[in-house]
Amino acid sequence: MAERSAIFPAGEYRRRVSALQGAMAAEGMEALLLTTPPDVFYVTGFLTRFWESPTRPWFVIVPSSGPPVAVIPAIGAELMGRTWIEDIRTWDAPDPQDDGVSLLIDALTGIVPERGRVGLPMGPETHLRMPLADHALVEARLAPRTFTDATAVVRRVREVKSETEIDRIRAACGVADRAFARVPEFAGEGRTMAEVFRAFQVALLEEGADWVSYVAGGAGRDGYGDVISPAGDRALQQGDVLMLDTGAVRDGHYCDFDRNFAVGRASDAARRTHAALHAATDAALRELRPGLRACDVHRLLANELRARGATPGAGRLGHGLGLSLTEWPSFTPLDDTVLREGMVLTLEPGAEVAPGRLLVHEENLVLRVDGPELLSTRAPAELPVVGA
Amino acid sequence: MAERSAIFPAGEYRRRVSALQGAMAAEGMEALLLTTPPDVFYVTGFLTRFWESPTRPWFVIVPSSGPPVAVIPAIGAELMGRTWIEDIRTWDAPDPQDDGVSLLIDALTGIVPERGRVGLPMGPETHLRMPLADHALVEARLAPRTFTDATAVVRRVREVKSETEIDRIRAACGVADRAFARVPEFAGEGRTMAEVFRAFQVALLEEGADWVSYVAGGAGRDGYGDVISPAGDRALQQGDVLMLDTGAVRDGHYCDFDRNFAVGRASDAARRTHAALHAATDAALRELRPGLRACDVHRLLANELRARGATPGAGRLGHGLGLSLTEWPSFTPLDDTVLREGMVLTLEPGAEVAPGRLLVHEENLVLRVDGPELLSTRAPAELPVVGA
Repeated sequence: MAERSAIFPAGEYRRRVSALQGAMAAEGMEALLLTTPPDVFYVTGFLTRFWESPTRPWFVIVPSSGPPVAVIPAIGAELMGRTWIEDIRTWDAPDPQDDGVSLLIDALTGIVPERGRVGLPMGPETHLRMPLADHALVEARLAPRTFTDATAVVRRVREVKSETEIDRIRAACGVADRAFARVPEFAGEGRTMAEVFRAFQVALLEEGADWVSYVAGGAGRDGYGDVISPAGDRALQQGDVLMLDTGAVRDGHYCDFDRNFAVGRASDAARRTHAALHAATDAALRELRPGLRACDVHRLLANELRARGATPGAGRLGHGLGLSLTEWPSFTPLDDTVLREGMVLTLEPGAEVAPGRLLVHEENLVLRVDGPELLSTRAPAELPVVGA
Repeated sequence: MAERSAIFPAGEYRRRVSALQGAMAAEGMEALLLTTPPDVFYVTGFLTRFWESPTRPWFVIVPSSGPPVAVIPAIGAELMGRTWIEDIRTWDAPDPQDDGVSLLIDALTGIVPERGRVGLPMGPETHLRMPLADHALVEARLAPRTFTDATAVVRRVREVKSETEIDRIRAACGVADRAFARVPEFAGEGRTMAEVFRAFQVALLEEGADWVSYVAGGAGRDGYGDVISPAGDRALQQGDVLMLDTGAVRDGHYCDFDRNFAVGRASDAARRTHAALHAATDAALRELRPGLRACDVHRLLANELRARGATPGAGRLGHGLGLSLTEWPSFTPLDDTVLREGMVLTLEPGAEVAPGRLLVHEENLVLRVDGPELLSTRAPAELPVVGA
């Protein structure tokens, strides 16, 4: 079968592994152990929705030189065999007595010298996708080798996207653009949120999503109560603002942006807030440059909102994206990450319309040397109206 | 907004918490710390697709008595506030300096005495959804309190479903049943797998899925190479067997079963293997009872396949499901879990048709005192034919 499992030519993965190995050398790591869907996909091109099953752990080892080693359940051998990875070691998982632990230890001890260090992402926005007890066992049996935090190594490399990655994220954004353009076909007064969410997901698929990993939204007069809720049974009403947010996936790459709509005429407060969010986003699109820090972008957006009489929402006002719905960095007051050319980012200013009611506005972009290039089609300055 | 966030009445969650607390007492645990989507949903009813963002950790503590405590990012306060949980403590996440760690430690030290033990799932099919470095920090600052493995506690309780849970899983199975019945509308000679996967997801949504967390499949003469692949660009051909497998979600509950179709006339080998899989499933449906062990079911299915001249596939031949696509136990030779009334299970025998080509057949059921009750509509004995 001529399956589309590679996504990129092997050269792209070799470039990534080489970049990781450079960063590992600077940190004195003899190997890097990866366990999560985006990290494994990044290095191998192994793309499957089977991660949805929590049953089995999956391991990819990046040695200090040479190609990666996949230590994976046998059920994945055929699919991994269609990627550029050649050293694929499998076990019959799930095995309640030894679920890949011995095989992983063998692979690591063959690669890492006795006093060596194994990098493992342990820091912000990471987790270890294997049973904690098995990790403790691996750690004990690898000694005197040690595990050390590799978050910075992985992050520095993954944060800056290649042109070919950017193309894929742009394609995912295009899917969402086209689906958002169709919202007036299925959203309007009397339609329930459940109906709208379902029709929106169908539109995303019809417009080219391979699958839809994320849809959230809300609706109400003067905005919505939160931005992470699934659909409820409430019907849209005249005067509501409707928000839909999506992470649609195309070739394993995500978009992440939202759009707001007015059901008939929105309240003056909602219109004023939307205008402030739009203008603040325009200001950030003008001023964003490599060299700014994430916290600078937060301050810029918050100041622009306040200058227009809007109250910035709590929480971050944008973030990275690409191989997962959200990635480092975060536009918060505490994140001092320096922005670099090639980062793919969201601008996501939110503001309170009334106590407990908010609006959030979002765009996706890639940061170029001279400023942002939009990946999403810029939202209109005025709230688009859907049937009322 | 009258959102559908509760899923069940509070009594259902109280029953679950009480069952967990009973199991915790037997193990001498003063608290249970939960971090993953199914565990948090199970105890609280907190349902969101926002787990797709890896940025923020979420914590729910079940004390040895009394209601749970949610220690969560502020972005989730509004949605958690619509569940039965009353003690909700939040922080502004992501915080690169302290991402909920202090708040979690405060909550745990307020609940667990100084020599007490905190249960945490660390065993098979679990993982810890928080940064490993933060876990180490929490562990150090909680001392002399210790973490101890709570996999058995969570598993014993979650494995047996209530009637109200079974109803939800049955509803998810019904969605897939209706979507599978529509496969002949969009699958046939010349259609690419990408087109078929997309149309199948649309059908699942139209038939009532809130979202589609999992679709995999394959096609080929004499079966497919694996069962976890995403769609490729290959077009269906006369004589192919097409398999589609889905975990469609309705009210936070999953189905997990597949269906096979013949594009025109399947090969004799594929037809013979399909008949063996169907007959082996019939045998298991007759003989499955509480008290059997998971390994007994594996042996039963494997023997039935061999008796019909089929070669059982490697790996497990069925498993639990419900709050995630797959759950404990596993029908493998090594899993000695005793089956209990109220378990929701898949029978998933697979067999080799030719070297490297397999067929897999799957049904979902709930185990009653006198045997299985099917939750999926029994697949036909003969491979259904789609347009050729």
